[in-house]
Amino acid sequence: MKLIEPRNLKGFRDYLPTDQIPRSIMFSKIKAVFERFGFEPLETPVLEYEDILAGKYGTEGEKLMYRFKDNGQRNVAMRYDLTVPLARVSAQYQNDLPKPFKRYQIAPVWRAENTQKGRYREFYQCDVDVVGAPAGIADAECIAMVEQIFLDLGIKKFVVKVNNRKILNAIMLTAGVSEDKMLDAIRAIDKLDKVGAKDVVSELKEKVGLSSNEAEGLITLASTKVPDVGALKAFINKYILKQPQGQEGFDELNSVFTALKAFGTKNVEIDLSLARGLDYYTSTIFETIITETIDSRKYGSVAGGGRYDGLIKLFTGKDVPAVGISIGIDRLFAAMEDLGLVKKQGIVSVLVLNMEKSLQKEYLKIVTDLRKVGINSELYYTSAEMKKQFAFAEAKNIPYGILLGLEEAKKGTVTLRNLKTRKQKTIKQKDLLKELKKVLK
Amino acid sequence: MKLIEPRNLKGFRDYLPTDQIPRSIMFSKIKAVFERFGFEPLETPVLEYEDILAGKYGTEGEKLMYRFKDNGQRNVAMRYDLTVPLARVSAQYQNDLPKPFKRYQIAPVWRAENTQKGRYREFYQCDVDVVGAPAGIADAECIAMVEQIFLDLGIKKFVVKVNNRKILNAIMLTAGVSEDKMLDAIRAIDKLDKVGAKDVVSELKEKVGLSSNEAEGLITLASTKVPDVGALKAFINKYILKQPQGQEGFDELNSVFTALKAFGTKNVEIDLSLARGLDYYTSTIFETIITETIDSRKYGSVAGGGRYDGLIKLFTGKDVPAVGISIGIDRLFAAMEDLGLVKKQGIVSVLVLNMEKSLQKEYLKIVTDLRKVGINSELYYTSAEMKKQFAFAEAKNIPYGILLGLEEAKKGTVTLRNLKTRKQKTIKQKDLLKELKKVLK
Repeated sequence: MKLIEPRNLKGFRDYLPTDQIPRSIMFSKIKAVFERFGFEPLETPVLEYEDILAGKYGTEGEKLMYRFKDNGQRNVAMRYDLTVPLARVSAQYQNDLPKPFKRYQIAPVWRAENTQKGRYREFYQCDVDVVGAPAGIADAECIAMVEQIFLDLGIKKFVVKVNNRKILNAIMLTAGVSEDKMLDAIRAIDKLDKVGAKDVVSELKEKVGLSSNEAEGLITLASTKVPDVGALKAFINKYILKQPQGQEGFDELNSVFTALKAFGTKNVEIDLSLARGLDYYTSTIFETIITETIDSRKYGSVAGGGRYDGLIKLFTGKDVPAVGISIGIDRLFAAMEDLGLVKKQGIVSVLVLNMEKSLQKEYLKIVTDLRKVGINSELYYTSAEMKKQFAFAEAKNIPYGILLGLEEAKKGTVTLRNLKTRKQKTIKQKDLLKELKKVLK
Repeated sequence: MKLIEPRNLKGFRDYLPTDQIPRSIMFSKIKAVFERFGFEPLETPVLEYEDILAGKYGTEGEKLMYRFKDNGQRNVAMRYDLTVPLARVSAQYQNDLPKPFKRYQIAPVWRAENTQKGRYREFYQCDVDVVGAPAGIADAECIAMVEQIFLDLGIKKFVVKVNNRKILNAIMLTAGVSEDKMLDAIRAIDKLDKVGAKDVVSELKEKVGLSSNEAEGLITLASTKVPDVGALKAFINKYILKQPQGQEGFDELNSVFTALKAFGTKNVEIDLSLARGLDYYTSTIFETIITETIDSRKYGSVAGGGRYDGLIKLFTGKDVPAVGISIGIDRLFAAMEDLGLVKKQGIVSVLVLNMEKSLQKEYLKIVTDLRKVGINSELYYTSAEMKKQFAFAEAKNIPYGILLGLEEAKKGTVTLRNLKTRKQKTIKQKDLLKELKKVLK
């Protein structure tokens, strides 16, 4: 018989229980915050008609999409992000959904990325969006929620950077960027943090057609520090007053910060150089950076998003304002591991050791009694050597063991063992539940 | 601008919040039982190399698989069930996994089914398996766990039917089925419940080559009622003693029932006609039928499984015993809806109504205070007409509303309204949290 080699596709991962347990604990915490803020769960299919997804992610994105013909010769594509399916759903069920529609979705997406960059081809996204509310409280609520999530996950130092595309546009126009080169300029400015001013100047000259002076002027303007809304107002009056978009963007950002103040956020700042790569943002944009690690740039943006008031129109023909944020769950989890915030833990509390074949009935009774009171527990199936059974407990991170031998069975006692410290205590069988509840708190 | 028609592929569904909320509550309850029984979560990719999945599901299954060439010209296929990926994982990480390996996985799978039969092309499976334990306690534990899940979900009348392929084989051989026609005979017998004895006789004559007498004899044998292990023993001694497989199967089933007795199960019975369609079962097989509905056959088997001791060998060349059960989550959910066990419910407890633009700061403060104590709550974003705001609350099934107008703000009071009964009560603002906790229990 020719064996099949067990293996994964490049860029695809298995999550064994040791990884999946802390990962799903993180998911639960995030979900709890989403729901506390009034967002409801939505699920959409993995496969969509290709035309639903095509043409939304730019030329580069388009190339990374998994697409094929199904058995019925339909052109289909695998989910590439969670925003476009939401836009489809918002259009398709527009009369059935609450208005505004606040939803979250935690689900995998697929992109045929170059895996050498440490990127995966299957990875989770974790999105919240508000469909049908104008700039203001909705944007602030997304930001306040991200702050709450980071705090609930135990991350202490982080900053949510906020900007507005209209202000950025006004800066660009002031600096001499032409309307048709706006997105190219945005993509260049987006790299400022990663590649530095020199390379961005080159790109602005090459792709946007600015002179050296204009490019440097643009970077100086976009790098201006504006510690608060008052400073932003002064900046606008001084430099970009002639561009009406600037005032419009200011009004929007001002309403967002008014709401943020009421929410009591403490980790938010304005960053005029924040650009975001995606084409579809139209107004507020934001990005969250963890600053707690030694190298602050290590994880880049772990949660970003913004307002995209034009996307749903592609399906409905009508203007539908929308804002959302996407948490980069994989990067966030990696950061939490680095920061020591991920506890290796199992889900089973008690292992009943299988010491005597003749006592299996008693063992099963114990395990059943424990489960009845909600204690996750199990019996080692066979009376194998103890070494094997302890190795099993260790592999599953089980903290407590119950030992019942023939002598103890006769006496009506049982031994409760802390499998980490190896300390143990022999007690009456009838006291077992009480004792266990005590040690498990 | 040409609009894109928002639509789903045939056989694919969106789960809007009204469906997804009760669905995810059901998932949580099932997960809790899995974990109480010591099963840990595993996640595997949606895409696999085609050769990992191919050749495991029979000719019919093979045709339904979603497969294509990826951008790197690899032959890939979408997950077809959760058992084969588990077999791959068990082989691939054999030195890293606990032995035995007890895992659960709740995830979608894809099959290009004929949708006219009310079948979906993307649907969830919900599997638990034990890899590396022989027939006996492990099989019983799967059965006991399914019983517990049904009880925890509120289903009162159901039966888990149990059989053993070796006993079934012995019955077949006794009735005159030749070794090479065994799987054909099993597939015929598997339909006994659905199509009745007459059609099964035809199929046995046609595909298995039995005479009418032989076919009827086989059905009579397989339909023999054996209320307990004692009766089974007598049956074996009387009819199939010459087939050694029969005795072997009896010993296995006996050890399963010994363990079941210790687990205290109450809804399990032997059914010698139970066959299960899949080729890879080798020993214990089981199926769960809800009997509480008026038409007991309406949902067919809502949870089935068995022992497949040969599957992992395809990857390792070594014998690795394994047993598992798969819950048909969609059918189970549909049954629960029929039985009135699914509660329509939202996840938000409180809506702060937006009555005065000038009070938005106060509204946001209330909402933030509620969230701080863990109450899922939200503010309607704009001071729209009340009708719209109440419609929003209704669409999201929000039970309580908080009303704060200018007069109340002045007096330091607030109105708490039950949005279902429309009863309301004006209280001091400082008593709001206490009052809310009381009504929310």
